[in-house]
Amino acid sequence: MAEPLTAEQIESALNDLPGWSYADDKLQKRFEFGSFKEAMSFLVRVGFEAEAMGHHPELFNVYSKVDIALNTHDAGGKVTELDVRLAKAIESFAWRD
Amino acid sequence: MAEPLTAEQIESALNDLPGWSYADDKLQKRFEFGSFKEAMSFLVRVGFEAEAMGHHPELFNVYSKVDIALNTHDAGGKVTELDVRLAKAIESFAWRD
Repeated sequence: MAEPLTAEQIESALNDLPGWSYADDKLQKRFEFGSFKEAMSFLVRVGFEAEAMGHHPELFNVYSKVDIALNTHDAGGKVTELDVRLAKAIESFAWRD
Repeated sequence: MAEPLTAEQIESALNDLPGWSYADDKLQKRFEFGSFKEAMSFLVRVGFEAEAMGHHPELFNVYSKVDIALNTHDAGGKVTELDVRLAKAIESFAWRD
């Protein structure tokens, strides 16, 4: 059972996650790409990572934009270490400027 | 420039689109799959179709659910024939019961 992070822990995690914010009990970020194809490629890459971790994000795409929101179902929809880990993994391969 | 469909035309199109509804100026449907992998596969399949048509939906995914919303940016965000065409294409390959 995943433990919800405290406000301080979330604040601290966000220091290492440029562009991410905490809202509605979720870690969130909008990614903008140069095309729909790039956005879809990114979605698929996120999907593989999520499946490997057994932890799945909310993904919203319209054209070249992808919005990601992370929380943990097993922790009552709160942010846990698992969300921070997935956000960091996403950052590691988010190919854009 | 795509022409917005009339209420009657949308009503008529929905007769051939089981499970689709018209709300917030968009054609909408929720698809539920057996797993995240199936949902992602469907997303990618929709993506290829959208790119081929040069017409892109709003896609929302969380775990095994995919919400699709269709409208036409070039028609002031209204529903056009293009949306009906993409919805029908999606129906043709939406593999589920």
